[in-house]
Amino acid sequence: MAVRISFEEMKAQFRRVLLNLGFSEKRADLCAAIFAENSRDGVYSHGVNRFPVFVQLVKEGLVVPEAEPEQTGQHGALAYWDGHRAPGMVTATRATEQAIALAKEHGIGCVAVKNTNHWMRGGTYGWQAAEAGCVAICATNTIANMPPWGGKEPRLGNNPLVIAIPRENGHIVLDMAMTQFSFGKLQEYELKGEELPVAGGYDETGALTTDPEAIRTTGRSLPIGYWKGAGLSLVLDVLVASLSGGRSVAEITAQGKEYGVSQLFICIDAARQNEAIIENILAYTKACEPVHAGGPVRYPGENTLATRVRNEKEGIPVNEEIWQQVLAL
Amino acid sequence: MAVRISFEEMKAQFRRVLLNLGFSEKRADLCAAIFAENSRDGVYSHGVNRFPVFVQLVKEGLVVPEAEPEQTGQHGALAYWDGHRAPGMVTATRATEQAIALAKEHGIGCVAVKNTNHWMRGGTYGWQAAEAGCVAICATNTIANMPPWGGKEPRLGNNPLVIAIPRENGHIVLDMAMTQFSFGKLQEYELKGEELPVAGGYDETGALTTDPEAIRTTGRSLPIGYWKGAGLSLVLDVLVASLSGGRSVAEITAQGKEYGVSQLFICIDAARQNEAIIENILAYTKACEPVHAGGPVRYPGENTLATRVRNEKEGIPVNEEIWQQVLAL
Repeated sequence: MAVRISFEEMKAQFRRVLLNLGFSEKRADLCAAIFAENSRDGVYSHGVNRFPVFVQLVKEGLVVPEAEPEQTGQHGALAYWDGHRAPGMVTATRATEQAIALAKEHGIGCVAVKNTNHWMRGGTYGWQAAEAGCVAICATNTIANMPPWGGKEPRLGNNPLVIAIPRENGHIVLDMAMTQFSFGKLQEYELKGEELPVAGGYDETGALTTDPEAIRTTGRSLPIGYWKGAGLSLVLDVLVASLSGGRSVAEITAQGKEYGVSQLFICIDAARQNEAIIENILAYTKACEPVHAGGPVRYPGENTLATRVRNEKEGIPVNEEIWQQVLAL
Repeated sequence: MAVRISFEEMKAQFRRVLLNLGFSEKRADLCAAIFAENSRDGVYSHGVNRFPVFVQLVKEGLVVPEAEPEQTGQHGALAYWDGHRAPGMVTATRATEQAIALAKEHGIGCVAVKNTNHWMRGGTYGWQAAEAGCVAICATNTIANMPPWGGKEPRLGNNPLVIAIPRENGHIVLDMAMTQFSFGKLQEYELKGEELPVAGGYDETGALTTDPEAIRTTGRSLPIGYWKGAGLSLVLDVLVASLSGGRSVAEITAQGKEYGVSQLFICIDAARQNEAIIENILAYTKACEPVHAGGPVRYPGENTLATRVRNEKEGIPVNEEIWQQVLAL
């Protein structure tokens, strides 16, 4: 059963819980807003559904509410940060601010962050940069949740990649994990008793399967594009961990819990960007003959905007059980 | 039938042909070396097999042998270039040199290039940056060769993405097009009369298929990860075209021939990179239990190095018919 909760009520509940956990007013505001915005934009897995997990990590001391992210080095437009395990959304927001400032000054800027925490929806920082007139390329590593190509055990993270481009009529924001389906999506299909639309992993016999339960059992999620997504995941881990000097997927996985991850934030000043070219690309792509008559061809970020408008009007749909959990926190 | 040609002989033949086409000694050397290196490293589709196509584009005046790529603007560590349709390998090599120089000075550097030509193997510039101690992120657009998600006609390029990370024991270089199989790969399977190992596109009924001939007929290649690779392809096109102010996939496709494309070269100084973290990641990943006993788990770039060593020793395998074509040029 889903209930509809307004953005303001959702944010207020999150804020209440975070203040009780020792967050300052300012940080509680920021984190509550990001969780509520993620749900409002339809990314429920990293909004309200994830909030109880976040609270648990705070209680265990793995996310430190008032830790101060610190710049530990700088080489021109490239900055090195230690997140000191502050809430990931706080550090990612600030790192993006800094990457934007570096980009405005130097044309391009980069912040490599070690020892930070889950940024929830990566797209948040893409939208932030685009709002400031910057292109963004951001990446994070995660705990291991898919096998390398040719391997059976999870040793790669789904290591989301974000690419954002500012646009007057709605920013283009790609926020893409390296697994074909996120853990949350698999769970969603399993709860509904539905098959996946395309293969999402391997069953016990080593065959590709659309059965979400079989994939949960084996732990063998499918990388996007088979060997290609596995390669991209590995390279993104090497990139964020080796540049920041932070934890790799291997080290995060050895901890048993996902904390202290590594991230990278690149911003490029888009002041000289040619907006007409973007409109032309979108028009050309969307004018494609559809597979199903009248079926839409969408650009990354388009659904987000549509969902945002609908959820702002009708309220944000939340699983009632999860909402009761939040109220009880 | 394949013959084995030494690297030096292959390069000398390419050089001879390019000098006859009006290339200077210096440019002929560089372009011949890149074509021969691509074949030596096992990327035959962008080495010897592509050489006759390149020659044809030069004869048609679409690739201009002695055109001078020109810097048209600069904002700190971000440079804007016009390739003036010079050979793509020349401009990409120089743009990478500039991105490396900017990265050494500013920590990170970026060169956005419009009006350039096919760079052949994108990995070339990843290896170049890694050799200079830099991380590289490079992207190009192409002619349309796959449909957007939900669409039937080719309106997206396979827009390769390159990510390279320097490493003492062999650089990590990912060079990944957005189609599950390149056109060259599909052709290879079709000529051998073999099925693809996984679905590579759609047949006439709109079903996923492993039949390379059916995919050639429909022109509906599969993006890596279905909707995900389609989204990444679109975003990369927007990125390279709007930042450089150059041609988009739409405009390249309207020309009917692939020339005057847009590219982006980002380099990050890796002087403070932690090499031990990289070794740890590779060891952890490679120690994964294999799907097939004794089967390898490889990192991107590992096969390239192995092929390079073998082809340097045994000569580079070339289809005899194609080699005769080159000799006759």
